[in-house]
Amino acid sequence: MSDNLKEKIKEFGLGTKTINNGHRTLNKDGSFNVTKTNLPFLERFNFFHSLISMPWWQFFSIILLGYFVINTFFACLYLWIGVEHLTGIQGISKTDKFLEAFFFSAQTITTLGYGRVAPIGILANIVAAIESMLGLLSFALATGMVYGRFSKPSPKIKYSSHGVIAPFNTINAFMFKIVNPHANQLLEVEAKLTLSMKKDDFGAREFYGLDLQIPKVVFFPYMWTIVHPIEKDSPLFGLDPESFLEKDVEFMVTIKAFDESFSQTVYSRSSYKAAEINWGEKFTNTVKFENGRMTVDVSRLDETEKAVLN
Amino acid sequence: MSDNLKEKIKEFGLGTKTINNGHRTLNKDGSFNVTKTNLPFLERFNFFHSLISMPWWQFFSIILLGYFVINTFFACLYLWIGVEHLTGIQGISKTDKFLEAFFFSAQTITTLGYGRVAPIGILANIVAAIESMLGLLSFALATGMVYGRFSKPSPKIKYSSHGVIAPFNTINAFMFKIVNPHANQLLEVEAKLTLSMKKDDFGAREFYGLDLQIPKVVFFPYMWTIVHPIEKDSPLFGLDPESFLEKDVEFMVTIKAFDESFSQTVYSRSSYKAAEINWGEKFTNTVKFENGRMTVDVSRLDETEKAVLN
Amino acid sequence: MSDNLKEKIKEFGLGTKTINNGHRTLNKDGSFNVTKTNLPFLERFNFFHSLISMPWWQFFSIILLGYFVINTFFACLYLWIGVEHLTGIQGISKTDKFLEAFFFSAQTITTLGYGRVAPIGILANIVAAIESMLGLLSFALATGMVYGRFSKPSPKIKYSSHGVIAPFNTINAFMFKIVNPHANQLLEVEAKLTLSMKKDDFGAREFYGLDLQIPKVVFFPYMWTIVHPIEKDSPLFGLDPESFLEKDVEFMVTIKAFDESFSQTVYSRSSYKAAEINWGEKFTNTVKFENGRMTVDVSRLDETEKAVLN
Amino acid sequence: MSDNLKEKIKEFGLGTKTINNGHRTLNKDGSFNVTKTNLPFLERFNFFHSLISMPWWQFFSIILLGYFVINTFFACLYLWIGVEHLTGIQGISKTDKFLEAFFFSAQTITTLGYGRVAPIGILANIVAAIESMLGLLSFALATGMVYGRFSKPSPKIKYSSHGVIAPFNTINAFMFKIVNPHANQLLEVEAKLTLSMKKDDFGAREFYGLDLQIPKVVFFPYMWTIVHPIEKDSPLFGLDPESFLEKDVEFMVTIKAFDESFSQTVYSRSSYKAAEINWGEKFTNTVKFENGRMTVDVSRLDETEKAVLN
Repeated sequence: MSDNLKEKIKEFGLGTKTINNGHRTLNKDGSFNVTKTNLPFLERFNFFHSLISMPWWQFFSIILLGYFVINTFFACLYLWIGVEHLTGIQGISKTDKFLEAFFFSAQTITTLGYGRVAPIGILANIVAAIESMLGLLSFALATGMVYGRFSKPSPKIKYSSHGVIAPFNTINAFMFKIVNPHANQLLEVEAKLTLSMKKDDFGAREFYGLDLQIPKVVFFPYMWTIVHPIEKDSPLFGLDPESFLEKDVEFMVTIKAFDESFSQTVYSRSSYKAAEINWGEKFTNTVKFENGRMTVDVSRLDETEKAVLN
Repeated sequence: MSDNLKEKIKEFGLGTKTINNGHRTLNKDGSFNVTKTNLPFLERFNFFHSLISMPWWQFFSIILLGYFVINTFFACLYLWIGVEHLTGIQGISKTDKFLEAFFFSAQTITTLGYGRVAPIGILANIVAAIESMLGLLSFALATGMVYGRFSKPSPKIKYSSHGVIAPFNTINAFMFKIVNPHANQLLEVEAKLTLSMKKDDFGAREFYGLDLQIPKVVFFPYMWTIVHPIEKDSPLFGLDPESFLEKDVEFMVTIKAFDESFSQTVYSRSSYKAAEINWGEKFTNTVKFENGRMTVDVSRLDETEKAVLN
Repeated sequence: MSDNLKEKIKEFGLGTKTINNGHRTLNKDGSFNVTKTNLPFLERFNFFHSLISMPWWQFFSIILLGYFVINTFFACLYLWIGVEHLTGIQGISKTDKFLEAFFFSAQTITTLGYGRVAPIGILANIVAAIESMLGLLSFALATGMVYGRFSKPSPKIKYSSHGVIAPFNTINAFMFKIVNPHANQLLEVEAKLTLSMKKDDFGAREFYGLDLQIPKVVFFPYMWTIVHPIEKDSPLFGLDPESFLEKDVEFMVTIKAFDESFSQTVYSRSSYKAAEINWGEKFTNTVKFENGRMTVDVSRLDETEKAVLN
Repeated sequence: MSDNLKEKIKEFGLGTKTINNGHRTLNKDGSFNVTKTNLPFLERFNFFHSLISMPWWQFFSIILLGYFVINTFFACLYLWIGVEHLTGIQGISKTDKFLEAFFFSAQTITTLGYGRVAPIGILANIVAAIESMLGLLSFALATGMVYGRFSKPSPKIKYSSHGVIAPFNTINAFMFKIVNPHANQLLEVEAKLTLSMKKDDFGAREFYGLDLQIPKVVFFPYMWTIVHPIEKDSPLFGLDPESFLEKDVEFMVTIKAFDESFSQTVYSRSSYKAAEINWGEKFTNTVKFENGRMTVDVSRLDETEKAVLN
């Protein structure tokens, strides 16, 4: 391994250990194909991370469940104190009393407070005063998470489904194409491309940072074709489609950008395996000038045409 | 194209494709003159981006509409359950009943809860309990967006309406001037200047990063004249006003800064086309010392005087 | 001016224009001694910046005033609709009616809703429904600002009241000292030192970036003495106390750091004029080892001792 | 001291002053072993920092206490105005009246407002109107802090309990190992390693920045062994276990990363003293391929095996 390559290998947190053939390190959706085991019990939970990452239906289910559980708890408390300490309770059966206490609790925890039912006496009043305060604090968490989820930047960059090996000047290059399908501007967009391939027949792997023709763009209004020219010092130099499969190559992409809507730095990841790379094709130009404006046809992101390799 | 220029071309996400003559890539207000078409249906909507970017009147209209729709929905629900499950309802006609249910819903969703009208019985109470909880969550979104819009940093940098070609030491330079009209401090202000011009008669364009005399300033209390000296290696070298128009030049400006009030990084963009550039003028010094303080006259941002070019 | 100095001059947004003698560009508290005039009317106001920067008493006065004005407006509206549309109103005189409407408005806008007074009829209900919604939205702004002000990072770095010219190895150096008096950690603390001095007798000024012995520290748990060694290429080389006064020197300091409590980047600024610089003194070491811990005596920040200059 | 080392010493805010033997500058948990004394009275308090750093039980105690104190204050105010201005008060004894006023205050400050007790007359209404507004503002602080604490990024990076001196190619190296036990992704993870050791017998210390084989990784899905190769220019070159103890070495680690869940930059710190370094051991590879996924066994973070030093 040349010094130059050694240098390039120095930037990834992936190690050069044995990885089974065909295994994908980075999934298409940007998650890692990794399991962490034997975590200490308490560190298995990361509430904020879970609550902000789970699907919306799951998030709302948890809030509804929590709302139900807390109100049940307080309803029991009011029952235990005695519903005679709540004015306006009309139920006679146990169930009716519980339900009225439950709804009184809901009216208290949301600080709704119709007042048709209201606490009388010290105990009921203490519980209600504490419940309304807890209600404000715990709804602060719930509503904070709702807004936090809603305002969390998630760059929905679309990647071309395939990479290509295309002619580039007098040599060839590995290329893929991205587009930001949304109206929000991404600025100072930076791409990093990492190659992982088998070093030997025992399954040990090596990682290389690949030089990009243009690693960073100031604006990103159109599509962007990201190009790694296969120069002589590229680890791809001299390889053919068969050796791509044999060496089980995986191209890992990281895109970093500043999202102007969210005023925050965002990251996006994806990867291409050997089978997702088309040799001898190049991406079609899909940006056109129409009605006085440049027009980007997002649906043609994957469009390629035949090209003779150098 | 020299290697030096090739290097400079490497920093923009704009491509070197055919662009029609006279077309403006970057509008004066910093938006891009680009349309994206054929988006997959679901990706056409980016609620957060839309809600934070739309004008205030539109934003409030949407909230009012949402408030009206949700209350109508719940009013219907209460009517369907039967208004006899709401105490204090006095209306007899259908319309009156609907209106009372509507206003009860409004009192519930805002957690106002006067209690003149209050739910009785299981069904009405369940709906009210859920409505008040949904009210807290959905108002969290609305109020979060109100504050998010209000606290969104938007650097209101003012650009001189024209750029100039002015003498600079023994050569000439392209200059424009900016000022921060507000009281908030912008720190570590960084300017990037990109030139776009026609490469040949077929309309293909090239992009160049232009070197600035001072690309970054620590403070920005006064005005700042941004200067690109037209050295021999500048793509502007040897051009005259006619070739500016012929080559359909467009100077694209990006300003990046840290806004101290908002504690956030902010971006601003603008552009100058050939027709917006005055040859043989220079900006007047409009910073004066008055009453023991430096004084910046913002209204004189565009003031220039004649200057003999080198 | 040597090329080296020219290079150094390239980093400030201050211009090299005429500044009156004795004028301070940067105040001790970090604000700039600059007035902006002739702003377009609409751009004079930057509500967020004003609301987040003003003193707390002023902020609360504005909120109280707004609360009063809005409730007065809605009280008038309810009076105009007719207080007979509010149940529970007992006042007979005009004043009493107005006051009851005013307090009803307050109970509505805060979503308190006791219900002793409650709206009856369409008009009063519509106004109350809108008021409670507006209340939620406008209190979102008020409470957002309260928390925004409270959680706004403001690095309270203390600067030594004087700078010194002290011996440093075989030469002399300009030094000043800073401390973070609070318990929160500042990380990756970076100092920038700018010198402003008169170029000639006509009052024109020049600006220089001064090299620091240590421009950036990873941690900042103790005090930090920031040192500019007066090497041969320093613009201070060969100057004496008289020429400091004559040339009206001003040392402008910018400190940039990451505040771990606030998880944000923060800035602090200050300056030293010629009269605030003591020649032939050096800062005393005020860090001691006591009871198994390092101890920093913040009150001794300004302590110096005599030192013979090289 | 060579120029090279002098250069390396330039990056820490720690000074080269006398520190007692065996003293730890940086604690294992990342806090500094430093006390600041003689702070000006007003600067001793940094409410935001305290409220966001204290344990949850302490935080809730303060909120509960504040809630109790404020309600007591307003209860006294209502008593002083006269409980006859509150409808629905049924208590006769002083205590009962106070309690009813207290609970009324709680219902007002949380904007609960049952209305069983409600204010009548100007004074009581004014106080209630102000209390409900203050309630909204002060609960904004409390709930903001609750969410701020919950959403504060705290990278729970786990460090191996010991560092090792292990063989590395043809030389030896200082190594330690870290893992992110949580599911959230850390990106662009950067390590900085600082060595502190005694310069002479008088206890003065020197600080060195140590070069790392890989100072920054793009991803961090597995474990990461951080390696400082002991080359000839390393300050560790030629030292043995005895001199480690004698010179009282301390390795200080700073990890900086971008936390994708929180969309924020986070820092983590720890340190290793001479006694926490094992000579002639190397870390075991604990990443395995199981069931089609890479598996990281977090509990084996500290696992080492014997290794013959070069």
